[in-house]
Amino acid sequence: MYLESFSYQEDSVHIDAIVQDLLVRQDEIVDRLCAFLRLPSVSTDPAFAGGMLAAQTFLVDWLKRMGLDNVQLLDGGGHSAVYGAWNGAPGRPTLLIYGHYDVQPPDPLEAWITPPFEPTLRDGRVYARGASDVKGSTAIALETIAAFLKVRGACPVNVKVFLEGEEETNSPSLRAIVEQYRDLLQADGMISADGARAHCEIPTINVGSRGIVEFEISIRTANKDVHSGRYGGAIRNAAHEMARIIASLHDDVGGIAIPGLMAPIPSLDARAETAAFPFDAAAFVTDVGARAHGEQAFSVRERLTLRPALDVNGMWGGYTGFGGKTVIPSTAHAKLSLRTVPGQDSDQVSNALKTHLRAVCPPDVEFSIDDLGTGSGAFSLPTGHPLVLAAKKVLSEATGQEPVLVRLGGSIPITVIFQELLGVQTLMFGFALQDEDIHAPNEFFRLTSLAEGLSAWPRLLEKVGEQSADEFRSMATAAEKG
Amino acid sequence: MYLESFSYQEDSVHIDAIVQDLLVRQDEIVDRLCAFLRLPSVSTDPAFAGGMLAAQTFLVDWLKRMGLDNVQLLDGGGHSAVYGAWNGAPGRPTLLIYGHYDVQPPDPLEAWITPPFEPTLRDGRVYARGASDVKGSTAIALETIAAFLKVRGACPVNVKVFLEGEEETNSPSLRAIVEQYRDLLQADGMISADGARAHCEIPTINVGSRGIVEFEISIRTANKDVHSGRYGGAIRNAAHEMARIIASLHDDVGGIAIPGLMAPIPSLDARAETAAFPFDAAAFVTDVGARAHGEQAFSVRERLTLRPALDVNGMWGGYTGFGGKTVIPSTAHAKLSLRTVPGQDSDQVSNALKTHLRAVCPPDVEFSIDDLGTGSGAFSLPTGHPLVLAAKKVLSEATGQEPVLVRLGGSIPITVIFQELLGVQTLMFGFALQDEDIHAPNEFFRLTSLAEGLSAWPRLLEKVGEQSADEFRSMATAAEKG
Repeated sequence: MYLESFSYQEDSVHIDAIVQDLLVRQDEIVDRLCAFLRLPSVSTDPAFAGGMLAAQTFLVDWLKRMGLDNVQLLDGGGHSAVYGAWNGAPGRPTLLIYGHYDVQPPDPLEAWITPPFEPTLRDGRVYARGASDVKGSTAIALETIAAFLKVRGACPVNVKVFLEGEEETNSPSLRAIVEQYRDLLQADGMISADGARAHCEIPTINVGSRGIVEFEISIRTANKDVHSGRYGGAIRNAAHEMARIIASLHDDVGGIAIPGLMAPIPSLDARAETAAFPFDAAAFVTDVGARAHGEQAFSVRERLTLRPALDVNGMWGGYTGFGGKTVIPSTAHAKLSLRTVPGQDSDQVSNALKTHLRAVCPPDVEFSIDDLGTGSGAFSLPTGHPLVLAAKKVLSEATGQEPVLVRLGGSIPITVIFQELLGVQTLMFGFALQDEDIHAPNEFFRLTSLAEGLSAWPRLLEKVGEQSADEFRSMATAAEKG
Repeated sequence: MYLESFSYQEDSVHIDAIVQDLLVRQDEIVDRLCAFLRLPSVSTDPAFAGGMLAAQTFLVDWLKRMGLDNVQLLDGGGHSAVYGAWNGAPGRPTLLIYGHYDVQPPDPLEAWITPPFEPTLRDGRVYARGASDVKGSTAIALETIAAFLKVRGACPVNVKVFLEGEEETNSPSLRAIVEQYRDLLQADGMISADGARAHCEIPTINVGSRGIVEFEISIRTANKDVHSGRYGGAIRNAAHEMARIIASLHDDVGGIAIPGLMAPIPSLDARAETAAFPFDAAAFVTDVGARAHGEQAFSVRERLTLRPALDVNGMWGGYTGFGGKTVIPSTAHAKLSLRTVPGQDSDQVSNALKTHLRAVCPPDVEFSIDDLGTGSGAFSLPTGHPLVLAAKKVLSEATGQEPVLVRLGGSIPITVIFQELLGVQTLMFGFALQDEDIHAPNEFFRLTSLAEGLSAWPRLLEKVGEQSADEFRSMATAAEKG
């Protein structure tokens, strides 16, 4: 009985009223965002431990006040995640709502026009550390839930809010948290407030990102650096050997030259979707004074998002100071990162790369390789997934344009962790834009983006809630199977 | 008349008596060497300016007291050289006598068993900074001249003592001094107290050294480092390009792969002389834990002394700190040194190397190359030169062994400067040995080496003085022509 009356109440308030409620309360919402931004929740620096605790307390309090249940901190040995749930929509899908409350360090402080933890409104923007990454979009998600519960007394779906505290430090305890609270976090899908919009004018939906594995290789050719006059011409030089190893990684046009790293050719659909995204490849390259280089069979945008990339991130050996020093380097080092694409198994390509590196290193040269970090697999959200279809409808209705499906060249470890451990697919629905100086001084978030998000998020939850949980799950399963 | 009586006096004291005089006064000679070693003449560090002046004063005083004329400081804008001449042997050859009074910095001080500027006798060695490099052998040369003048009242040859004060800082003003005092320094040949003996048991004569040219190359592929997720696969990576450039320098066995750097095949004589030097190539390589590598057509010793060598002394690009950083480096750098051999022209090979580097660097990559230092040509002392023949006789009589002609893998700029500017060939006749920790803590010089030098130097000057200046010059000219 309770459920039926409840269901009636849900229907009684039209989604437009929810959005309207949010938009008229923008000043209040900005004030609350500013209160959130004022808390210096820098996860990487123990000096900001107080700021982290303050942000946790702020969020716990807010989630409780908006009416979520089971509000708690989820501890995995590092900075806890903040959790809260609303399970009042039986039969409807259950969605994890992801955001993170930690921010990057504010350095260099002297480059900020206004202090990083004193949010300031200028030119329709709120300036503060974390405004764009990602307290602004996290606030949109939370305000949306709060508005549903306040105005309608119910959300259109069941929600499990999960706010991470270690996103800016590569999520060291995220796996532990998800494994420990697996039952609590079980859901049909996840919507993330993180993940910036790919374009400022065209609606886009992220449906993939590349994975990453990172290594450091070291070689040794002697037990010390020796004089190049005394030994030059007679012995191996570690810098020469490292150069030969690195030179073996790519062909003349910049394609990866290691057979075991070959990736599947992207599907025609994926190529068509990529072509649909307006992308000025020449401008993209020349903006940073770069020189285009890479597989000629693919467009620049395809190479960035649908093809693997192997980059030396750093290399060094011998004397690197001022002037000359006539030594033969005995050691040389390189850091490598490999971006993988869906269809590549991280372990398999890691092993293929290691095998190649050992094979090209001469047997009389000492070789060692270390993993850097844990890596992350490539992510792919099936384009027929109900979260994608819902987002498409919401964005096309809001903008009058058909959203373009895009993929990222970078890597988003959390999507892979939730997919691996919970079988949950993630739709990134953040409202940040690319130019908002995240991780840099004078980070900002646009108030127009706040309004756009406050309009889109309620409609997205409403759209997902039009399906039953069973319908959602069977659509998701079908989409996974392609 | 004066000259005739003088000549009579010269003949009156046998060379054995000169040597005997030196050997019985060894305690006095060691005392004077210790006084010289006590002066902290570190040329590279302005904090030691007082030590440099004290050493100059010490030498000026000594040269005057032993009876040299025209004693003076030769200023070329840096640390002055100390000069003094004795021109009392008309018709005999005139020899420059080279040494240097500056020493390396004593750091790390805490590693010295006894302080670097408090000379200490232990186990038949004198320990002090500069004992081996090269105040010990410089003292032998000066004591020899002093003994001739004291005991016989004359030297067998005309001498022009030239004691440099900047050898340890790459002789920045040596060219200026030699050019400015060209007339004062004109001579038929030079004997250097510098240049260590190649072997502790076998008498050797240095007849060559490799030249050196040094460069730093820089490439740029973008105007800033960019994110490897955002750009990976689409643009050039400076580390990759630098690796390909460096990898192009050598063939698979380590030989130089640049046609314009091909050196003339060494003569059969030079190869035979090289083979005559007892050299354990395997031990030489394994002593430093190195891996032998290089042109298979030549022995290790030949590769070290008769063949050019091209080494990367340092290379760097991108992130080289702790852990990973997913950047695409926009710049990369390498320092290169090329050791040249006689028959190679420094300018020609420099240009050939630069041409190759520019040619292998892709045209869309910014490339720059800077000379490091002024370089130095290869040095070759003709084996029929009268200084070599005199040294052979002296060393074979002293040791009962036929001296072996050796060549150095390193470079000795002063020999080339005097050859270029004055047409003067240099015989290196130093008595230091290879293991005396020069440029390191606890540098020492053996008192047995002091005695061997005090025996050999007078006999060498005597042997050269048996020839007239004309004979000496015509032999030198014939030797140069080969």
